[in-house]
Amino acid sequence: MVNNLGKGNSLLNQYISELRDVEIQKDTMRFRKNLSRIGSIFAYEISKKLEYKSREIITPLGTSEMKVLKNYPVVASIIRAGLPVHQGFLDFFDRSENAFISSYRKYYKDGNFDVHVQYVSKPSVQDKDLILVDSMLATGVSMALTYRELISDEKPRHSHLIAVVASVEGVNYIKRNLSSKNVTIWVGAIDDELTAEAYIVPGLGDAGDLAFGVKP
Amino acid sequence: MVNNLGKGNSLLNQYISELRDVEIQKDTMRFRKNLSRIGSIFAYEISKKLEYKSREIITPLGTSEMKVLKNYPVVASIIRAGLPVHQGFLDFFDRSENAFISSYRKYYKDGNFDVHVQYVSKPSVQDKDLILVDSMLATGVSMALTYRELISDEKPRHSHLIAVVASVEGVNYIKRNLSSKNVTIWVGAIDDELTAEAYIVPGLGDAGDLAFGVKP
Amino acid sequence: MVNNLGKGNSLLNQYISELRDVEIQKDTMRFRKNLSRIGSIFAYEISKKLEYKSREIITPLGTSEMKVLKNYPVVASIIRAGLPVHQGFLDFFDRSENAFISSYRKYYKDGNFDVHVQYVSKPSVQDKDLILVDSMLATGVSMALTYRELISDEKPRHSHLIAVVASVEGVNYIKRNLSSKNVTIWVGAIDDELTAEAYIVPGLGDAGDLAFGVKP
Amino acid sequence: MVNNLGKGNSLLNQYISELRDVEIQKDTMRFRKNLSRIGSIFAYEISKKLEYKSREIITPLGTSEMKVLKNYPVVASIIRAGLPVHQGFLDFFDRSENAFISSYRKYYKDGNFDVHVQYVSKPSVQDKDLILVDSMLATGVSMALTYRELISDEKPRHSHLIAVVASVEGVNYIKRNLSSKNVTIWVGAIDDELTAEAYIVPGLGDAGDLAFGVKP
Repeated sequence: MVNNLGKGNSLLNQYISELRDVEIQKDTMRFRKNLSRIGSIFAYEISKKLEYKSREIITPLGTSEMKVLKNYPVVASIIRAGLPVHQGFLDFFDRSENAFISSYRKYYKDGNFDVHVQYVSKPSVQDKDLILVDSMLATGVSMALTYRELISDEKPRHSHLIAVVASVEGVNYIKRNLSSKNVTIWVGAIDDELTAEAYIVPGLGDAGDLAFGVKP
Repeated sequence: MVNNLGKGNSLLNQYISELRDVEIQKDTMRFRKNLSRIGSIFAYEISKKLEYKSREIITPLGTSEMKVLKNYPVVASIIRAGLPVHQGFLDFFDRSENAFISSYRKYYKDGNFDVHVQYVSKPSVQDKDLILVDSMLATGVSMALTYRELISDEKPRHSHLIAVVASVEGVNYIKRNLSSKNVTIWVGAIDDELTAEAYIVPGLGDAGDLAFGVKP
Repeated sequence: MVNNLGKGNSLLNQYISELRDVEIQKDTMRFRKNLSRIGSIFAYEISKKLEYKSREIITPLGTSEMKVLKNYPVVASIIRAGLPVHQGFLDFFDRSENAFISSYRKYYKDGNFDVHVQYVSKPSVQDKDLILVDSMLATGVSMALTYRELISDEKPRHSHLIAVVASVEGVNYIKRNLSSKNVTIWVGAIDDELTAEAYIVPGLGDAGDLAFGVKP
Repeated sequence: MVNNLGKGNSLLNQYISELRDVEIQKDTMRFRKNLSRIGSIFAYEISKKLEYKSREIITPLGTSEMKVLKNYPVVASIIRAGLPVHQGFLDFFDRSENAFISSYRKYYKDGNFDVHVQYVSKPSVQDKDLILVDSMLATGVSMALTYRELISDEKPRHSHLIAVVASVEGVNYIKRNLSSKNVTIWVGAIDDELTAEAYIVPGLGDAGDLAFGVKP
């Protein structure tokens, strides 16, 4: 299933428009802040789908029956462009376990590339809700690969894959390659075009470079 | 109209349960953080009701038609307990104009009290969306009074009154005293009881004292 | 005693230069952020002057003798321009009690004005370290008046008065009117000129308007 | 040169004592917050050693000659335990370029281990100030290795290596292996003991696990 949170109007679209804007994105502090705020918004929307349990809370003046999270989800992000989004998730899911994973493109002489997982740090995800965060979903290859690496031979309760801006092609790749029964895709916008170099158009450019500086 | 965001399950209820908890609320940093996160959640939900306009955004790779806020709402808060919630609103509505207002209870020998406005700093609210933020809605007298002071002889486009925890009585007082056509009430929880001293039960105690220290 | 933290080079001067810059200050989010970061820097520098006590800390692997704050200072701010600076202080002194105070200028026909205290919310400051925060120190009248109101008939252990940008005249006014034995002034910059309307030149304009929007 | 910022009393020691405390560190949000605040404190202290240039700032009321950073340093961190400290640095050096690097220990049957670099994302550091951040400096092998990888065949203007808590052995290893002319070490505390498993005693345990959850 695909949830495009940008379909309805909200502050999310305001932030995405600032991320996209070639002038506003020069302010890297605001760029990272927008990614983090978007992360918090996704965290909140996803939290509506999680499981809750009743707990009796003792207040200074009485007792209140409240619904609290049954379990915090594991929050994972793809390094480095996923980090500011991750920060917004962790700001809201402050009791979550976290995972970090990196992948890289290995290019061949003909311009094609494979994606390989490089760094991974993860807790067990067995029977847990798993959230995997990135800023962009371009081809979808990297998201699918890191997702498979994160779960390896475990079975999460349910998985949520998040990208702020996705391409039609990337969303379709995920839908084709990962079971829709166990996986929900959440995006803030779906753009039509994907260049041969795997850039989303109109997109916003390279989110990692914009957040943290250009890699030579 | 009354929007009780605590009716559905989400992180909001997790945070309110921590605010209420007589043990967890001893950590004043977490207490303020929870009020701020709740402010951001309210800001996001209210943003779904605001007006948007189309704007063409130039990205590094193309042009994107985005919906952005037509106007930022004015964010007002009741000092001091409203301040941490205000901070969460301002974190999300970062381009908003702000207002601050204070009121106090003047007690009579028989234990009754009047509420008076003391400090007010405000921009014009004419034809703007106005958000008035407090942590608690107890009797509703203070909220109604400060709201009237804020608008004085102006006419906002629409007003949103926010309280994290409200009493049934407080909500009813606002509904009776302010036109429901122009005003929407947003709360995180509605508690049944209100003591003679105007404390919400079970509530969470005195939000101002818990956030900033006990006033003698 | 006067501590001008802007005398030596540090990030403080970077932030003050951004606050002053008529272009950069249009970004109100960055303006407030700079005031908050400056608040945190002042908090840290002031913390070097506070009293500490030894405490044995049990770590997961042993015991460590650490120096911790003997007491947290009370952090007070002048509403509204002091609020973003207060936030930076509270972010660092997260266990502090807080006070808020407001004053206003009552103008006479001849253009002269008196300063009156309006709103005050404060804990006892007897025998405590007291920090009073504002963004600007123009004439010094408002700072001296609110300071006297805060302490009233109590006696703090020591008081620290903070302004991001001060005028020579304002600093001198405080030095003349408050005992230098019990009070330390901390500023980020001292500007030469003060206009008849009590604006600091070159200064940065009206900090309250720049942070929160223009008051009509 | 070694700068031990924990030698003098300040909020830094308050935060380190909370990081060490086996009870307080259970609150992972506070644990990460303390690492970030410490990062900001280090950033501020290091900023006193950087180069500044004069710039004329146009204020709304005049012109001010200010000293601003000549260049922002590159901020690098060792994943994952360095991330929350990195965040505090970036919060203060908001215009910096960033680098991320990971290393892992490859264990042999006899219990010995080599350290290898795994992931690296970096801008050019030629002629720039370089700050490399980690939470702990245990043996020093990982810090020295990642530092060499970061600079590879380039020559930074000056390098600052940061660890919140270090061991005597780790500090000595860095001093022996990296030129003290080009490298300054900054720590918040230096503990005496290092276990055979390379844990600092009394230390604070595994900073990565405490910030982000236990790795199986």
